[in-house]
Amino acid sequence: MISRLQHARLAYQPKLPAVFREHGAGAASRDGDVHAPAHDGERIRGFFPNVYRLPMVSFDDDVCAPPVTQDPICVGVIFSGGQAPGGHNVVAGLVDGLKSLHPDNRLIGFLGGPGGLLRNDVVELTPEHIGPYRNTGGFDLIRSDRTKLESEEQFEAVRKHCNARGISALVIIGGDDSNTNACYLAEYFIRSNAGIQVIGCPKTIDGDLKNEWIESSFGFDTACKVYSELVGNIYRDALSAGKYWHFIRIMGRSASHIALECALQTHPNITLISEEVAHDNLTLLDITDRIAAVICERAAAGRNYGLLLVPEGLIEFIPEMRVLISELNDLLANDASLQRTLASAPDEAALTACGLTAASAAAYKSLPAEIRSQLVMDRDPHGNVQVSKIETEKLLIRKVAERLRERRAAGEYLGAFSAQNHFFGYEGRCAAPSNFDADYCYSLGYTGAALIGAGKTGCIAAIRNLHKPAEDWQPFGVPVTSMMNIERRGGKEKPVIKKALVDLHQPPFCELAAHRAEWAVADEFVSPGPIQYFGPGTITDLPPLTLLLEKGVSINGDIG
Amino acid sequence: MISRLQHARLAYQPKLPAVFREHGAGAASRDGDVHAPAHDGERIRGFFPNVYRLPMVSFDDDVCAPPVTQDPICVGVIFSGGQAPGGHNVVAGLVDGLKSLHPDNRLIGFLGGPGGLLRNDVVELTPEHIGPYRNTGGFDLIRSDRTKLESEEQFEAVRKHCNARGISALVIIGGDDSNTNACYLAEYFIRSNAGIQVIGCPKTIDGDLKNEWIESSFGFDTACKVYSELVGNIYRDALSAGKYWHFIRIMGRSASHIALECALQTHPNITLISEEVAHDNLTLLDITDRIAAVICERAAAGRNYGLLLVPEGLIEFIPEMRVLISELNDLLANDASLQRTLASAPDEAALTACGLTAASAAAYKSLPAEIRSQLVMDRDPHGNVQVSKIETEKLLIRKVAERLRERRAAGEYLGAFSAQNHFFGYEGRCAAPSNFDADYCYSLGYTGAALIGAGKTGCIAAIRNLHKPAEDWQPFGVPVTSMMNIERRGGKEKPVIKKALVDLHQPPFCELAAHRAEWAVADEFVSPGPIQYFGPGTITDLPPLTLLLEKGVSINGDIG
Repeated sequence: MISRLQHARLAYQPKLPAVFREHGAGAASRDGDVHAPAHDGERIRGFFPNVYRLPMVSFDDDVCAPPVTQDPICVGVIFSGGQAPGGHNVVAGLVDGLKSLHPDNRLIGFLGGPGGLLRNDVVELTPEHIGPYRNTGGFDLIRSDRTKLESEEQFEAVRKHCNARGISALVIIGGDDSNTNACYLAEYFIRSNAGIQVIGCPKTIDGDLKNEWIESSFGFDTACKVYSELVGNIYRDALSAGKYWHFIRIMGRSASHIALECALQTHPNITLISEEVAHDNLTLLDITDRIAAVICERAAAGRNYGLLLVPEGLIEFIPEMRVLISELNDLLANDASLQRTLASAPDEAALTACGLTAASAAAYKSLPAEIRSQLVMDRDPHGNVQVSKIETEKLLIRKVAERLRERRAAGEYLGAFSAQNHFFGYEGRCAAPSNFDADYCYSLGYTGAALIGAGKTGCIAAIRNLHKPAEDWQPFGVPVTSMMNIERRGGKEKPVIKKALVDLHQPPFCELAAHRAEWAVADEFVSPGPIQYFGPGTITDLPPLTLLLEKGVSINGDIG
Repeated sequence: MISRLQHARLAYQPKLPAVFREHGAGAASRDGDVHAPAHDGERIRGFFPNVYRLPMVSFDDDVCAPPVTQDPICVGVIFSGGQAPGGHNVVAGLVDGLKSLHPDNRLIGFLGGPGGLLRNDVVELTPEHIGPYRNTGGFDLIRSDRTKLESEEQFEAVRKHCNARGISALVIIGGDDSNTNACYLAEYFIRSNAGIQVIGCPKTIDGDLKNEWIESSFGFDTACKVYSELVGNIYRDALSAGKYWHFIRIMGRSASHIALECALQTHPNITLISEEVAHDNLTLLDITDRIAAVICERAAAGRNYGLLLVPEGLIEFIPEMRVLISELNDLLANDASLQRTLASAPDEAALTACGLTAASAAAYKSLPAEIRSQLVMDRDPHGNVQVSKIETEKLLIRKVAERLRERRAAGEYLGAFSAQNHFFGYEGRCAAPSNFDADYCYSLGYTGAALIGAGKTGCIAAIRNLHKPAEDWQPFGVPVTSMMNIERRGGKEKPVIKKALVDLHQPPFCELAAHRAEWAVADEFVSPGPIQYFGPGTITDLPPLTLLLEKGVSINGDIG
């Protein structure tokens, strides 16, 4: 059963770049330069001798060339990893683009992500099948999983399944790791003459798959707009009630892009940015001191309320916590039975007896019981701390309350501190895409079809000029190797797509840094409200503010 | 600073009932019958001899009468209690209605709720002042508090402040308790010849201020739509990921209307309704058994995911928990030092030694440590358990996991259970009002002005036919006494407005009961998406589904 809004949205025709609108996915492709990665070029070439020498691909507005393949083809597609709004539109754009190349082209979806690719579990994705999923959220059309495609045995299994089905191209919709593995797969297929192209597509709400070529990963805009709606509503509640501090943890484990975007949209009193905490080497005590200082300043102005945003991954960026988590992971990997001993250790001596260093024992002991338990008892299948399940917002509330008691005892604080905690993540991952994401995803899918039509492989579908109207968007393909560097992973040096952290010197963070002192004390909040699909284009089609800032577009004064 | 959407919404002109659109708030009023309350009439008359004899008031479409007062008047207004979307529109409707009576009429807002009324803290609410708050959420225009206006000293202070400012009418925007107290105040003013009318306005997102005359309290629609957006998004995530059960606690302490409305909008696998739990005398074990049964049934169909909705107030409706909470409240009221003893009691003997009955000691001991701590450590200023802070969704996850372990041991369950917990409350209380609430609230404010113009007091502004287009709405005034009954509160019998609980025999609950078996096992969820302000009226102006059902409107098949 579908809602009235979903029914209306089925009729929405996503906007395409002019080149595709005019020529379909058969628009003439143009090979550009070969772009070496910024670092480690020779070593990366060693891993990917074939993909490495591939050029950038753009599509030409002026010429209409026939597609490279004149015979009908069959293409496979998977979602890989966590959900992001707009995934269904990538598939819709892909199928429509393929049909624009040849009406008999076919699209096969592998069910359940990379795992389904290995199990050879498929469904044919006809336009009729995809119809009810257009402009909807979620990945439920073909689902996803977190299986990592990285071994030659897996690659060979994929080759066999694709060859047997006559699949000559595979589109992998995933984040940085999935696209890195897509590159290995492309290289393997070239080397083994498999006759299968591999095209990646940049997905992640976290926004950390972003670089010189990729302006934004899809889903980021919608997720941030959902979270900002909620943050704006809660700030207005804080202001209306005048008695609560709301501490809101928000998705984004490795990078704080979501927290930053939501902060720019809503102007919280305090926004923690993990990258800044790491850069400034701030301890938990430093952080809680700074928070307490703002709370005291607001209390002195009669404002015993406020709002703090904290990224999900913060705890791993606090130096002493990062060390503690790493020590706990090592200890428990060796001896899982230590879980209960650590959980019930009465003092620091007992903790060091388990193998923690004195510093980590002290750090552990300084945490509230609930957080200690989350650190040692909630482990993932590999025995690691589940950072995303640690209620950092509650940890901060407890530690800040301690600081405030000290300040009160010292006569520095006369206010009242009552806090509410929140976590926003699952609320936004499967929201129906905003117009920006609906258009962007559909165009990405179409770009994937065009790259396939042009016979390309080993590249990611990308779009430039996302800050402009969709007709001015420039679709292109970029070989995955161009965005790689070498990192140490699991004890080995590996070529991987570099994750984009928040850059403390770039405009989005600078915008926050320039205003946060003012937002801390005054009530300068903004309430963006829910995503709108009808009405003025300035509301429905607004791109993420971080994207606008990165493109040099001012976001001041353009509101209201 | 305001968002683009808020800027656009400032221009929205809420829809009014035809009678006001044509005649302004000076529409001719018509006195109707005197309606005795359904029960305890004579006793209620004893408390309110003057208000009790007042008639219903309606407004006539056909006649345009001059307002009763020809001289300009000055009116006061307060918000009382928790925030609800649309409060600002009540004030906007009130000021516009007053101006339609006489351009020199004035509106004074008391700042900070009933407390501000006692402190005599005011701001003049001119149309210019109200301008930026039209169609916004929150109560930040004049804020609110939870001070109870119930003593004669308070009434006398209010009289003095109002008389001194020339205020001849007071509008109290609040829930059932605030409107009950508004009635006491009206009675006091009649008795003391204060020359001050009192008009109430039905506010609460909980939806429990509802009866023969009040079809819906304002704010309920918007809050439920925000929560349903989130529930729908999360269900789609559950379906896409295929690996989590989401347990979502949702506001609504005394009544489960919010959970019911959200369930009708989204079709969760399991919805707990507190009133049904109490009616069927279900223990915590019964409830967790039923949940576990659904989880097992879904797991058998390969569905190790799902969504459960639980109302915030559930725990007080579970028989043994209600007794436990009551015993804890009594014990801790007498001796607060028992907190720590109870929190660290090693066994049931230690608990009974503190004064708990054996049954309550067992109930307490059966709870997870975290919940035990929330029960005894988090007390409100009166020493009572803070039911709204108890993480019932986590309690259910823990207890259900125990049940599932037993079932697994018995070979009855082969699935995997991994759960995520959520609480939604503050996300919806201050959301910008839906068109329904924007129109309803504005019309309520206008009705308030019309009742004042007609010289009425002791009544609540209300509107009939809310399931029809706004022009067909029928505004009227109903004396508060008509909706009262006698209840025992704090050891005394008191006349109060009867709270509306979910009626297990009425259409909204019956609709849930008729479909829940099917929703439990299949994936029949609906994703309503975010509130829309532009676009088709069938989307933007849809009233709550519970309201439609109560009005005999079918909600089947009208979607899609």
